[in-house]
Amino acid sequence: MTGDTRAFRALVETVGESITARLSDVERRLTELVDARDPRASGPALETLRAGGKRLRPLLVLTCGAIDDADETQQRALISAGAAVELVHMATLVHDDVLDDAALRRGRPTVYAEHGRERAVQTGDMLFAIAFEELAASGDADQVRALSEAASGLATGELLQREDAWNATVTRDRYLLRCSLKTARLFEAAAQLGAHAGGRPELAPTLGAFGAKVGLAFQLADDVLDVVASTEQTGKTRGADLLDGTVNLPLIVATERDASLGDVELRSITTAERAAEICDRIVATGAPDDVLAEARKLIADAKELLDGRVTRTERSVFESIADQAVVRNK
Amino acid sequence: MTGDTRAFRALVETVGESITARLSDVERRLTELVDARDPRASGPALETLRAGGKRLRPLLVLTCGAIDDADETQQRALISAGAAVELVHMATLVHDDVLDDAALRRGRPTVYAEHGRERAVQTGDMLFAIAFEELAASGDADQVRALSEAASGLATGELLQREDAWNATVTRDRYLLRCSLKTARLFEAAAQLGAHAGGRPELAPTLGAFGAKVGLAFQLADDVLDVVASTEQTGKTRGADLLDGTVNLPLIVATERDASLGDVELRSITTAERAAEICDRIVATGAPDDVLAEARKLIADAKELLDGRVTRTERSVFESIADQAVVRNK
Repeated sequence: MTGDTRAFRALVETVGESITARLSDVERRLTELVDARDPRASGPALETLRAGGKRLRPLLVLTCGAIDDADETQQRALISAGAAVELVHMATLVHDDVLDDAALRRGRPTVYAEHGRERAVQTGDMLFAIAFEELAASGDADQVRALSEAASGLATGELLQREDAWNATVTRDRYLLRCSLKTARLFEAAAQLGAHAGGRPELAPTLGAFGAKVGLAFQLADDVLDVVASTEQTGKTRGADLLDGTVNLPLIVATERDASLGDVELRSITTAERAAEICDRIVATGAPDDVLAEARKLIADAKELLDGRVTRTERSVFESIADQAVVRNK
Repeated sequence: MTGDTRAFRALVETVGESITARLSDVERRLTELVDARDPRASGPALETLRAGGKRLRPLLVLTCGAIDDADETQQRALISAGAAVELVHMATLVHDDVLDDAALRRGRPTVYAEHGRERAVQTGDMLFAIAFEELAASGDADQVRALSEAASGLATGELLQREDAWNATVTRDRYLLRCSLKTARLFEAAAQLGAHAGGRPELAPTLGAFGAKVGLAFQLADDVLDVVASTEQTGKTRGADLLDGTVNLPLIVATERDASLGDVELRSITTAERAAEICDRIVATGAPDDVLAEARKLIADAKELLDGRVTRTERSVFESIADQAVVRNK
């Protein structure tokens, strides 16, 4: 059982069976959409789907749209919006793996590693196209705009990440800007789409802000995982960020505390052993714990946004999603 | 003056000043849309825009929508649809240049060559996202679906092209399938979107079929150009298809006639000189002329589809677009 599956099961226990059944509807819809494309092209996309994932973004869509209280049309719109958001996420992952020369994703070979650069670029393009088609079929132009801007933000965030690669002097502000583009905006869009598709647009600003904070916390926690967790736990190499030159917050904070880390030539970190060794030095500074504490603070802020805006039941579901974003795999 | 500009001016003379003014509206809208994105990310996209192009697809959108007779809302919808189609085309070009390791496009350095793989992949992603946002803001779900399916088709077509790379035994049918996906479907979608956005959906099937044939003819003519035209004429290396392993129709036909061409190891063609030499051998068989004749036959068929379906004035504009698709640069 991968970390993903374990974390997902834990989440299901908290958010309840009903949402889980709806997530299966999203999963079915995803398969349907990809299956409808030319079989000569859809193979790698189907494999990517089957590789699974936490499906946190569709979960956010469904819960922000209160799918249990939604009428049939709204339910369908929520399932479509959930599928669309996950497809944009998947498209980005497939393209990122090309740029990172990544061999593994969720413990399985990436499309890039298994089928090459061409198929990977085109699989991502196809996933983008399907995402927007699906959302346009169920959502209004504002929803499509929200997803499009999030997708652009993702691209911009990844771009900044690569501009900053191997640069040990990246500041915390620059890091946070990058994460807000790379991760938080799609969470924000997921929450906004949910509110709109579920017929409660008045909640979109609050839930969007909630989603953005949860997304940022998720990214911080993910960066900590990269430093502290084993390959068995995460399905990717420990210190993968170091290996591809990504300066993350644990490293930034650790370098503030242990100046000798600033002397490490990042480009010289080319083996899993060397990456693990630097990870150990980052852990020794206590930086990962402090970054996790920052993530928890974001989660607390996110929960505070909900005060008086959602029902008590909803609040508890949102809180468990928020907690899960940080607790994962630990 | 590049071949593009020359061909475009010739086209303008035929289709008239009014359409030209509308094409400038599309151009302005394209710049507006890209300019609205994060300036940290939009630079290469703006350069790609400024590099120009024939804008045949937007032209097809505007004419199929009879923009001169359209009301203001329809005009805006047509300009948006034209921009969306061109953005999908641009996104594909930017991604293709990554896959082809292409240095030049329209006589200028590609985004890939100038800014690297990362920026090129992300620039393409951003262009896709903007395309669908723009169309969703003005068009209905059916229009977005048409564009999405065309975008998927493009990805599939490029995939087939790469699967077939360096394979001298590719059949004519396989070649035509590939071109119909890679080129004809976006022309078809452009024509259909035009008919819908211009408020005459009843013409969408006819104009779609017209667009598909013109698109296929355009691809055939483009393949001929690759074999016969100089770098000065096209802005790219003569025999570029040979250099990236693309077996095109002139080569397929030439090999049927001169069996010794079948013995050429395609992978051994690695220099511009050697590519030009093989191009000369293809020309010697007369294959390019025959492929051009096929393209002209497609154009004739396309024109025939219009019989009695469009006004006489429209017909003459459509015909000049169709002719232009084959005559270009010659």
